[in-house]
Amino acid sequence: MCRWLAYSGTPVLLDTILYKPAHSLIDQSLHSRLGVETTNGDGFGVGWYAPDIDTPAIVRDTTPAWNNRNLRELADHISSPLFFAHIRASTGTAVQQTNCHPFRHDRWMWMHNGAITDFHQVRRDLALAIDPGLFSDIEGSTDSEMMFFLALTFGLEHDPPGAVARMVGLVEETGRRRGVEYPIQMTVAVTDGRRLWAFRYSSQGSSRSLYYSTQVETLRALHPDVAFLRHISDETRLVVSEPPGDLPGAWNQVPESSYGVVYQGADELHVFTPAAG
Amino acid sequence: MCRWLAYSGTPVLLDTILYKPAHSLIDQSLHSRLGVETTNGDGFGVGWYAPDIDTPAIVRDTTPAWNNRNLRELADHISSPLFFAHIRASTGTAVQQTNCHPFRHDRWMWMHNGAITDFHQVRRDLALAIDPGLFSDIEGSTDSEMMFFLALTFGLEHDPPGAVARMVGLVEETGRRRGVEYPIQMTVAVTDGRRLWAFRYSSQGSSRSLYYSTQVETLRALHPDVAFLRHISDETRLVVSEPPGDLPGAWNQVPESSYGVVYQGADELHVFTPAAG
Amino acid sequence: MCRWLAYSGTPVLLDTILYKPAHSLIDQSLHSRLGVETTNGDGFGVGWYAPDIDTPAIVRDTTPAWNNRNLRELADHISSPLFFAHIRASTGTAVQQTNCHPFRHDRWMWMHNGAITDFHQVRRDLALAIDPGLFSDIEGSTDSEMMFFLALTFGLEHDPPGAVARMVGLVEETGRRRGVEYPIQMTVAVTDGRRLWAFRYSSQGSSRSLYYSTQVETLRALHPDVAFLRHISDETRLVVSEPPGDLPGAWNQVPESSYGVVYQGADELHVFTPAAG
Amino acid sequence: MCRWLAYSGTPVLLDTILYKPAHSLIDQSLHSRLGVETTNGDGFGVGWYAPDIDTPAIVRDTTPAWNNRNLRELADHISSPLFFAHIRASTGTAVQQTNCHPFRHDRWMWMHNGAITDFHQVRRDLALAIDPGLFSDIEGSTDSEMMFFLALTFGLEHDPPGAVARMVGLVEETGRRRGVEYPIQMTVAVTDGRRLWAFRYSSQGSSRSLYYSTQVETLRALHPDVAFLRHISDETRLVVSEPPGDLPGAWNQVPESSYGVVYQGADELHVFTPAAG
Repeated sequence: MCRWLAYSGTPVLLDTILYKPAHSLIDQSLHSRLGVETTNGDGFGVGWYAPDIDTPAIVRDTTPAWNNRNLRELADHISSPLFFAHIRASTGTAVQQTNCHPFRHDRWMWMHNGAITDFHQVRRDLALAIDPGLFSDIEGSTDSEMMFFLALTFGLEHDPPGAVARMVGLVEETGRRRGVEYPIQMTVAVTDGRRLWAFRYSSQGSSRSLYYSTQVETLRALHPDVAFLRHISDETRLVVSEPPGDLPGAWNQVPESSYGVVYQGADELHVFTPAAG
Repeated sequence: MCRWLAYSGTPVLLDTILYKPAHSLIDQSLHSRLGVETTNGDGFGVGWYAPDIDTPAIVRDTTPAWNNRNLRELADHISSPLFFAHIRASTGTAVQQTNCHPFRHDRWMWMHNGAITDFHQVRRDLALAIDPGLFSDIEGSTDSEMMFFLALTFGLEHDPPGAVARMVGLVEETGRRRGVEYPIQMTVAVTDGRRLWAFRYSSQGSSRSLYYSTQVETLRALHPDVAFLRHISDETRLVVSEPPGDLPGAWNQVPESSYGVVYQGADELHVFTPAAG
Repeated sequence: MCRWLAYSGTPVLLDTILYKPAHSLIDQSLHSRLGVETTNGDGFGVGWYAPDIDTPAIVRDTTPAWNNRNLRELADHISSPLFFAHIRASTGTAVQQTNCHPFRHDRWMWMHNGAITDFHQVRRDLALAIDPGLFSDIEGSTDSEMMFFLALTFGLEHDPPGAVARMVGLVEETGRRRGVEYPIQMTVAVTDGRRLWAFRYSSQGSSRSLYYSTQVETLRALHPDVAFLRHISDETRLVVSEPPGDLPGAWNQVPESSYGVVYQGADELHVFTPAAG
Repeated sequence: MCRWLAYSGTPVLLDTILYKPAHSLIDQSLHSRLGVETTNGDGFGVGWYAPDIDTPAIVRDTTPAWNNRNLRELADHISSPLFFAHIRASTGTAVQQTNCHPFRHDRWMWMHNGAITDFHQVRRDLALAIDPGLFSDIEGSTDSEMMFFLALTFGLEHDPPGAVARMVGLVEETGRRRGVEYPIQMTVAVTDGRRLWAFRYSSQGSSRSLYYSTQVETLRALHPDVAFLRHISDETRLVVSEPPGDLPGAWNQVPESSYGVVYQGADELHVFTPAAG
């Protein structure tokens, strides 16, 4: 439905990651290979952390990424050590800025690819489960924003994997109560500006594609001639819906029902299991 | 906050009403005189009934009305016997198409000027009062759309004045429970394509301006030289936030706490009293 | 580069032609089969003649056609006996309303698929050839609008085939002077609201696809069960970049280097030869 | 017609200058006091230099500045030592990104408030005077962009005051040949990323307003309590169409027919005289 990309590591110009690679994310907005939809032209968003500012900047627009000149300008002039980018293929909800990813809450960012099945049927039940103190901050009409608010309700800011597990648990329980066989399909990225979590899960056990980049050290050994690899730290990591570039050995599939954590230190990969909402 | 206009009568080019008059609605988007805001540049909408089609066409955009070329094109080429037009001044909610008026449900259209006070505080309570079968059709984030859905929940399609009275009653009751002194401020227009209802009410008894045009017959006697008046039927009526044109004797204020009904036959003016939600 | 459609005949809801058919023009905005680009998401336009108004209405927007709700509204509510629709795939020029087709001059409309090769190199020379009285009306930056203004300069309003022939002649002569081997590639539709001309030509003799619909009478005999065909006049004709629908026998390729004329009476098909500009 | 602001000095968040002051530029987009138009809602632009990149970033949009969330995001997260901001009130030309200021050529930025009188009449003559090698880079339809391209033609990159003088000379000569009494009205800002030139001139000798900020040292003495002044260098300077803020002694009118230069070292103020085009 959508495609996304999360970068963490040595500060780079957004252009380096968003536009430069063959089959870049921007190229995927026109010609996705692995997505359910080949065109992701229903808006886009980019969110990045700037030096000395806790809250990320988020620029979103309803136009296709491929022809947006402002995105091109930003990519050419902004460097960041941690940024998200998302291109949207709407499954029917309105093409409006408040439905574009990433979503933000204080220093947190969230983006999603996938869907809550028959969202129209469960939207009200899920909305009622949102913390009343957060409810009025909902601005759009997507399942993705709803998932974010549910995760916030369940303590995202203190225990991201636990909160996401409870969110998924609630969505599955609610969907099944309505007779939906496979209530959720998702890859999700979430960050607080320091750590980055990436989830891959679907009720059916057949989730949307998700990849993480190979350790920089390993890649450097494989490709001693690639200049870019010499200029980034060992900690640099990319998580993507669909691999850009054409570097052999660079990409690894995130396993079904699992999540990864990227941060200063050895990254982690864990099994993901929904919890009771 | 906004300005609106509702026309019912002899089919005319939208241009005749929207652009042609001195101080027209489109001019008011730049320079309103009676509004709380002098600029109404946060989007617009126009809705009209076409021959042999029950459901109105609704075109809405997030740009200012004054510079929108597509609106100009439509106004120059579309005639209708019943149409709404609305220019928006956002009080903070997102500038997006789904927050632009008029709103539609089947053959019904709704538009609003005013606000639910401290909407952020009561949004959830009001949302829960919406018919669960309608809840998922909410697309935007405005108080105006919420009011429409509450009115639909309370039977708008069968008894518009009764449903609006219950909607207002609920908003006042909910607001007061939260300590809001004057919970609602509104002028509302609603139509099913045949009849047109216009409401003016505020909890404070100091409502936004609302005017209706003088009977065509009377106007013709006053202004025998005005060609336009000779080409429209006796039944033609305009209801507006702010009078366009400069025809003496043409405009009458809708009294506080009242509503009017425009339809084939003698129009009506009634007292409006909120009812228990 | 783009796709377009021109309809002339019995007044129909735009929806009937733009959205209803399998592989409709709107569907082609996401998934074109015959175009150089598979996605035509860089804006769209629709122009139609309304009863008793000489000048066509033209609505254009920079968003993809497939997700534009206003286009959907218009298609559902506007009928016309003669309309154009165009979806754009920019080859680099800005995505802006004034670069969207159709273009208009008084009662005339013009739309184009193709390109002037190396337009950047010949733009100034061509601009100088435009009638000085028309020059300042240029609003955009496309080769397509330039072609329109050149055709107007060469007498489009009096002799469309002659004016288009001289326009093409000038473009070829100018391009060749700059060392361009194949200076032009085009399918063009032009109308004055009564007649419709459609041109297919390229310097290389390998032009973009263009089709016209089979005579209604013949189609009715082939498909006696298709209700739509019983409700349209014998004179009804469609010219398209890429056939919508799946009716066997419905579509005929416009031959290379030729143009057709659609009007009240027997339609015509002629050889097209560029003339000295 | 428009309002603009140019900042040079200690790197600051754009927010500090664009949003924070009372009667800020963003506020002027809704409520200008000194402009010919009180509303400047026909698009905006912001251009800034980022560290280690010669070419400025330019973000422009066709929406009003006051409700644009992306501008708000950028202002909250981007710091720059030299930036331009512009809000537009169109005098008829299309509201499109390519008509928004600032304009860019390599490392140069240009923005303008004012108009070439009867531009429609002289547009072709002026276009012909543009260096043929630059002609095809024109993207929009404004007089402002034309002035920029003429100044580039006349050597802007080597001698900005001389090139602007010749541009104005040509516009006046061309206009007068067409019977225009007062051919130009302008305030212009131009920069190469190091120096900033600001021009105020009109053929009538009654130019649009333009102000420059008082020397920081002097302001500090006047307002020892204003924290902001302690955090910026002595070299910091602001040039604006209309003063934001309410600091007594902060603003000085640029005299009629003059231009200033802001750069590292003592700034300059000179008489401006048009030269033969």
